[in-house]
Amino acid sequence: MNKTDICHKFVQLCGAILLVICIVPSLMAQGPNSDPKNEGSIKAVISTDPAPIFQKQMQLIEERRSSWLTKAEKAAPKLVCIPKKPVAVVKAEKDAASFQGWKIVKVGNVESVYDRPFLPGDSFILDFGEHFTGHFIFSVRRFNAPVDAPVRLSLIFGEVPAEMGEQFDPYQGGLTRSWLQDEVVNIDDIPQTIRLPRRYAFRYAKVTVISASRHGKFGFSDIQADAITSADETRLLPFTPRNADDEALDRVSRRTLRDCMQTVFEDGPKRDRRLWLGDLRLQALANYATYCNYDLVKRSLYILSGTAMKNGLVGTCSFERPEPSRGDNSILDYTALFAPTVLEYLEASGDRETAEDLWPLVLKQLDFTLEPVNAEGLFIPPKGWWLFIDWHKTLDKQAPEHAIILYGLKATLKLAEKIGKTGEAAFISEIIPRMEIAARKHLWDDSIGMFISGSKREISWASQAWMVLAGVPSPEQCRRAMTGVMRHPGAEKPVTPYMHHYVVDALLTAGLQEEALKLLQSYWGGMVKKGADTFWEVYVPEDDYASPYKSHLMNSYCHAWSCTPTYLLRKKFQRH
Amino acid sequence: MNKTDICHKFVQLCGAILLVICIVPSLMAQGPNSDPKNEGSIKAVISTDPAPIFQKQMQLIEERRSSWLTKAEKAAPKLVCIPKKPVAVVKAEKDAASFQGWKIVKVGNVESVYDRPFLPGDSFILDFGEHFTGHFIFSVRRFNAPVDAPVRLSLIFGEVPAEMGEQFDPYQGGLTRSWLQDEVVNIDDIPQTIRLPRRYAFRYAKVTVISASRHGKFGFSDIQADAITSADETRLLPFTPRNADDEALDRVSRRTLRDCMQTVFEDGPKRDRRLWLGDLRLQALANYATYCNYDLVKRSLYILSGTAMKNGLVGTCSFERPEPSRGDNSILDYTALFAPTVLEYLEASGDRETAEDLWPLVLKQLDFTLEPVNAEGLFIPPKGWWLFIDWHKTLDKQAPEHAIILYGLKATLKLAEKIGKTGEAAFISEIIPRMEIAARKHLWDDSIGMFISGSKREISWASQAWMVLAGVPSPEQCRRAMTGVMRHPGAEKPVTPYMHHYVVDALLTAGLQEEALKLLQSYWGGMVKKGADTFWEVYVPEDDYASPYKSHLMNSYCHAWSCTPTYLLRKKFQRH
Repeated sequence: MNKTDICHKFVQLCGAILLVICIVPSLMAQGPNSDPKNEGSIKAVISTDPAPIFQKQMQLIEERRSSWLTKAEKAAPKLVCIPKKPVAVVKAEKDAASFQGWKIVKVGNVESVYDRPFLPGDSFILDFGEHFTGHFIFSVRRFNAPVDAPVRLSLIFGEVPAEMGEQFDPYQGGLTRSWLQDEVVNIDDIPQTIRLPRRYAFRYAKVTVISASRHGKFGFSDIQADAITSADETRLLPFTPRNADDEALDRVSRRTLRDCMQTVFEDGPKRDRRLWLGDLRLQALANYATYCNYDLVKRSLYILSGTAMKNGLVGTCSFERPEPSRGDNSILDYTALFAPTVLEYLEASGDRETAEDLWPLVLKQLDFTLEPVNAEGLFIPPKGWWLFIDWHKTLDKQAPEHAIILYGLKATLKLAEKIGKTGEAAFISEIIPRMEIAARKHLWDDSIGMFISGSKREISWASQAWMVLAGVPSPEQCRRAMTGVMRHPGAEKPVTPYMHHYVVDALLTAGLQEEALKLLQSYWGGMVKKGADTFWEVYVPEDDYASPYKSHLMNSYCHAWSCTPTYLLRKKFQRH
Repeated sequence: MNKTDICHKFVQLCGAILLVICIVPSLMAQGPNSDPKNEGSIKAVISTDPAPIFQKQMQLIEERRSSWLTKAEKAAPKLVCIPKKPVAVVKAEKDAASFQGWKIVKVGNVESVYDRPFLPGDSFILDFGEHFTGHFIFSVRRFNAPVDAPVRLSLIFGEVPAEMGEQFDPYQGGLTRSWLQDEVVNIDDIPQTIRLPRRYAFRYAKVTVISASRHGKFGFSDIQADAITSADETRLLPFTPRNADDEALDRVSRRTLRDCMQTVFEDGPKRDRRLWLGDLRLQALANYATYCNYDLVKRSLYILSGTAMKNGLVGTCSFERPEPSRGDNSILDYTALFAPTVLEYLEASGDRETAEDLWPLVLKQLDFTLEPVNAEGLFIPPKGWWLFIDWHKTLDKQAPEHAIILYGLKATLKLAEKIGKTGEAAFISEIIPRMEIAARKHLWDDSIGMFISGSKREISWASQAWMVLAGVPSPEQCRRAMTGVMRHPGAEKPVTPYMHHYVVDALLTAGLQEEALKLLQSYWGGMVKKGADTFWEVYVPEDDYASPYKSHLMNSYCHAWSCTPTYLLRKKFQRH
């Protein structure tokens, strides 16, 4: 046993002793798994009964909700269409040193696939030079003899090299196979130009001839794409990065944002393609720092509001097409983020009318987020809700969720102040200190200087970050918690850029500018170094294959919630 | 050895003796394989040199040809769209007694596939009750939760039960795999109604779910089709069949014709979908007896004429889309049938203007069909031409091809008479008797009362039929040849309804009404008994799997050239 081992064992032993001394009595007094119904919600014990307030909001919601989808439709953006040309013919080559074991190698100019006959089995991969969301367009031609049979092509669109190198089938992943972007296309009449009706998110396109006549042969005469976005480059705010690394972070962030900006803010243009409240919040922030498409935020807010449940729960996610409808997921932490999202929209756009219009829905969300907060002000993880926080598989959600609810409360109060609704929101002022006290009492472990979560007293980056953002710890505690957790070898680290954003934000809130920049550059910069064209849904530096879906191919490699470096660099790190 | 065997041996022996006595000397005098160049074409030895006449026609062709495609476009028919609903959910069951070993069995009502959730692997087959050409339309729906992933379906369209029962892959056939009617369709937005853009020829449709969310499930709410044709049922000429068998023959013929009548007369709406001159001739005849769409014949004639080769050779087949273009096949016997087709169009429609317009092209075809006819008037099979006659694999083509060329000459002369061009056609009158005499001398074997073909002195139904139709044998010889060949155990029988049509026509020409009707009823009636919805491209009563493409799945089961029973019954067998 060497010195390090002995030291490690000592830490473990101390931890175990601390557990027994400090935590067990607290657990016995207040089990985090207690049923909140037994305890009664905080809503029932504060001096102002909020029930009539929520009831009033419901009436207003019912009066207004039919107009919300109309307003969403009116705010629909015009999509910008940017023609794209492939830049090279490439191949995907196995390479252990490359991201996910695949390297893209140029094998020829694009012209080499034009104007020559193709036969069954022929295949090529095109590199369009950058990731984008859009339509694939190709022209097929004949040679001397008419093409005397339909041409059947397999088309595979990929965001990352692995999608070009690996077989999609047999598919063992956890989400539906059809998200992987492959098509079989049959062409009857040649020559013609075909614009595939479906939209894809891709940088690479693999074309394989499945079936074609060996007599009247066909070929390609042109291949291009239309990149589609509601991000207008002419509106882009100016920004001078400090160095090439920041420039790359900003560029890849903006590309990520751009490709997710469609007729709503989509979470990922390859997979899901849905409007999610939690993703929207971060996209909107990045958007305010770059393309300033306020109408797109307005439309997205109105879609989530217009598809709220009958009981007034705002949409956690909404499907835009064929007509807006609520996804049947309910994420409690996303619900809590509705108020910050509306507040920030108001602050960025100055659109007070929309903020006032949505205020009843903002306030009503507290009815849901406060339900699992017990009389003492402690969040008790409820059943029936999806507590998300991060794609981390085993993360304990109690502390971060407690903090997000508190964060949402504070944003609601601030919004009320901005639009003159402090009367209706007065009860919030009573809850905030109770939740802060409860958090400090039950979730803060002063001996280690960090927040713990759940019955297993889990230490996680998420707990520290959200507590810092929610304003629970003192400035000194903020710094202790953030630096402590990042040095703690056993602390649970986030696996998504989504949660990493909040960690960077918390570091900045804690005044740890240098650490914030370092994390930004090492985490998102790590993706850039691995060849990221757009930022990924999941990124675990030591595991290229990490996936919440049991398939790295199923991950979204242009994911909205990863686009915040442009916001952070432009709004938080910008020197004056 | 029984009596029959002895008798059979005796016939064989007599045949062998006759072969030596009668045929060998004639073979020595005039080998059918002589090079026509050595002999010189008949065009060079007749008293009127036709070269200047052909030259004049070429000038006229060059003057007119650009207008022919314009005229084709002007004659484009309006397609009739008939909504179709599936009539049952069925399965394909192995059954040795059924056509190609597959039987269709009803398993449920169509409603049973509606309004219930579908999962990956689920599959059903719909029976639309009859064969048609058209578009498949289906509506997908959601249930309680939104459908949260694309739905990927496999769709297979089949004309016959085997296409529903057998796997298409691995495909070992001789034509391009993509003719088999399967599709992979991805659906992003649900609910919606989808009309597949490609056209199919089918009675059965197999739907299989390849991929779909197990969470937000989808289902079907409606499935239908649009049958498309340029055959207008309101124009159908009245006909009273003598019995149910004739009614069935007429009905299946008309359906075959109807499904091939699109914006041109297609050969097969499932596979090839092309305008072929030989098929057109028979379709046009059936059309004159039923739907009387003269414009469609006019358009088809003009497309074949407008896509003629630079040297004036009319199109053997033409592709209609994306714009009319000549297929690069040249069938000599089809070329010879251009004159009869134009003549019959004139007779049926009275459209003298078109006949006069196309006359130079009609006359010019003789330049090609007479080239392989030697100075004596005998057809010597040339190289570089496709001599078709029938899909029979080994058929010797000399005699039938000789006869068709003669048949074309006579039609040309008749057309000349009808439109006042006898002057230009005068040279034909010199060739006809020479070809008749040469046929009688070299291709008629009086000892057996049949025509023989090629160096192996092959006896075939095709030779007899075409010689009868060309008017070579005397009435008595006609009867001998036709009855003889049909009784001859070694005679080569046709494998297509196309050639069978000419056999029936020849039987009628020979005055053998009863035999003609018997053949019609046994051959086409045999398909009806085997469940034919439309008549097939190839039919060999003793071999359900016969295919020119090494795959019975690749055969066209609604094939234009098989549609003539309606013509024969209505025009040739009709009692007054």
